[in-house]
Amino acid sequence: MSALSFECLSKDATGFARRGRLTLPHGVIETPVFMPVGTQATVKSLTPADLTDDIEASIILGNTYHLMLRPGADVVEQLGGLHKFMAWDRPILTDSGGFQVWSLGALRKIEEHGVRFRSHIDGSEWFLGPKESMDIQRKLGSDIVMAFDECTPYPATYEQARSSMEMSMRWAIECREHLPVNDTQALFGIVQGGMYADLRRESLHAISNIDVEGIAIGGLSVGEPKEEMLATLDALAPHLPEDKPRYVMGVGTPADLIEGIDRGIDMFDCVMPTRNARNGTLFTDHGKLNIKNSKYQLDQSPVMEDCSCYTCRHFSRAYLRHLYMAHEILSSRLNTLHNLHYYCALMKRARQAIEDQQWPQFCDNFLAIYRQK
Amino acid sequence: MSALSFECLSKDATGFARRGRLTLPHGVIETPVFMPVGTQATVKSLTPADLTDDIEASIILGNTYHLMLRPGADVVEQLGGLHKFMAWDRPILTDSGGFQVWSLGALRKIEEHGVRFRSHIDGSEWFLGPKESMDIQRKLGSDIVMAFDECTPYPATYEQARSSMEMSMRWAIECREHLPVNDTQALFGIVQGGMYADLRRESLHAISNIDVEGIAIGGLSVGEPKEEMLATLDALAPHLPEDKPRYVMGVGTPADLIEGIDRGIDMFDCVMPTRNARNGTLFTDHGKLNIKNSKYQLDQSPVMEDCSCYTCRHFSRAYLRHLYMAHEILSSRLNTLHNLHYYCALMKRARQAIEDQQWPQFCDNFLAIYRQK
Repeated sequence: MSALSFECLSKDATGFARRGRLTLPHGVIETPVFMPVGTQATVKSLTPADLTDDIEASIILGNTYHLMLRPGADVVEQLGGLHKFMAWDRPILTDSGGFQVWSLGALRKIEEHGVRFRSHIDGSEWFLGPKESMDIQRKLGSDIVMAFDECTPYPATYEQARSSMEMSMRWAIECREHLPVNDTQALFGIVQGGMYADLRRESLHAISNIDVEGIAIGGLSVGEPKEEMLATLDALAPHLPEDKPRYVMGVGTPADLIEGIDRGIDMFDCVMPTRNARNGTLFTDHGKLNIKNSKYQLDQSPVMEDCSCYTCRHFSRAYLRHLYMAHEILSSRLNTLHNLHYYCALMKRARQAIEDQQWPQFCDNFLAIYRQK
Repeated sequence: MSALSFECLSKDATGFARRGRLTLPHGVIETPVFMPVGTQATVKSLTPADLTDDIEASIILGNTYHLMLRPGADVVEQLGGLHKFMAWDRPILTDSGGFQVWSLGALRKIEEHGVRFRSHIDGSEWFLGPKESMDIQRKLGSDIVMAFDECTPYPATYEQARSSMEMSMRWAIECREHLPVNDTQALFGIVQGGMYADLRRESLHAISNIDVEGIAIGGLSVGEPKEEMLATLDALAPHLPEDKPRYVMGVGTPADLIEGIDRGIDMFDCVMPTRNARNGTLFTDHGKLNIKNSKYQLDQSPVMEDCSCYTCRHFSRAYLRHLYMAHEILSSRLNTLHNLHYYCALMKRARQAIEDQQWPQFCDNFLAIYRQK
């Protein structure tokens, strides 16, 4: 029996946007959903209580690469798995480590059965391939396991993109072999193929032929122009299987999420709301706000009017600016709370719009206002 | 009418320890009390909700020196005062800035009417004396204003200690003149005199002759051996006025707090629980615990058994070690939560022991266990 079930609750009558429900061993997720990134067994600066009570996150990410190096997959396993380790009892999706080892550049060498690399922490030598990644993610005990793949660089020639994609497809089969369908962990395959529509469709076809529980789209937001990213999603949208959740990896801005939903995507993750928060950039319905700006020195208004997050309910822009300028830890925390709340609340608004058959208007209005800024 | 009233609820029949209640414009404080330090309008890494709900802090500190430089006293005043600025609605005590400018060493010059100094942030020139400190603390709007004094260095000759103490006494009179008794802010005078018992008593006498609402003891924990600190408190204990709260500034370890209570002290502050937390040192009834230690790698127990703080209720030593080793922001936060909870809960236990006429046993037991380690 599979660890995942997916139900489409309603669809926008005019396009691809859909409202669904994903059931996993640790809980139920309403989609479209944004998944906060918790790389090292923590969403930076936040507690599980912040994530559930204030942000209402229903699923978070963990990372194979970071956790295998520190504290180590065996350590997490001995401590009862990632959920218990970090005191998070809702679903977790773990990334395969493929993207992170690929990002190591000169520190890694890609081979037929995986990637040989040196740790960015202490230079020690490691090997990570489909089999190893499945073993580690099994030890971590995540609800959703990502296939180990190669991220195709941008730009890439057609031949480079094909050969990279084909290796990822071979690896996806290996992943399924090492992690057969079971009732505790679901496996997502990852569509690659660079910016070539036919390779993307070929990859989607290959992934669909493997018995994976979900379809991810990888290799986006790697430096390509926004139009190429959207064209790739456009090329795939009509062909995505109806009965499986669809996840665009590592994307993106609030507008990108709305564009993704409009193309039938159910799940998103990105470091943008958390990383930008630590750099003093805050998201609002009217665009980004740089809290460092001296114009906020005496500004008594919250980051965003009508925002119900803890930060906006209690603190002024002036105070947030002070915390940032004074290098206070609380700055990262209050900014992160707001940004993740904003992302998750935006998904809630999107779900409501789809349910109410108001998606096209919601989507147009949001993009129009957001892009003016 | 004064902004402060103090009531002694019960006394240890055998010594100086006492259980009291302090009423200030922003709330009631049960004493003995530990006051978390919030130097830059934030107790590092924590929100007001953490401080009230989990730690049960009833009063916190702010700092004149840091706030005058950043964001500036006028800015805080325009934003409605320190309480509103940092969203803290319970009492605040502000330090005068005297200790901080004195600590600047080569960057400051002490004159008859105050201290000329350069900002540690940008090198700009400033002047801070009794009058300026009162003006700034009035703008901050704290419940308790500390007199501006000079911290006598350790070691100091008798003549140095006398001349420094005498200047602080002149400054204390100036402070009261610039901040007459009023119903929104109480003024505490500060006893100096180095490690000389007769100078300390002379200073206490001088401060008692000014109409201040509370008595602070300054110039301790500045490098002197523990015995000298305790001898100074011993020399003052029989002479402290019964009707005023007594506050030892910048002290200390959990054992120091217990020793202080035993000598009739009602109020304490120290950066130790917060600063040590950020460095991975955690306080327990059995002494300090260094979370970096590799022996905690697989340790599933909480920092301290039976501790009711958020950290101990949810996380293992193994997880806290991981966060520290991975340089995660959450490390500072969870450690700070535990340490401040420990300090504040220790004060609660001390209050109960005094009420129950169990103080001598409680004090002896605590010091015996704590000092073994």
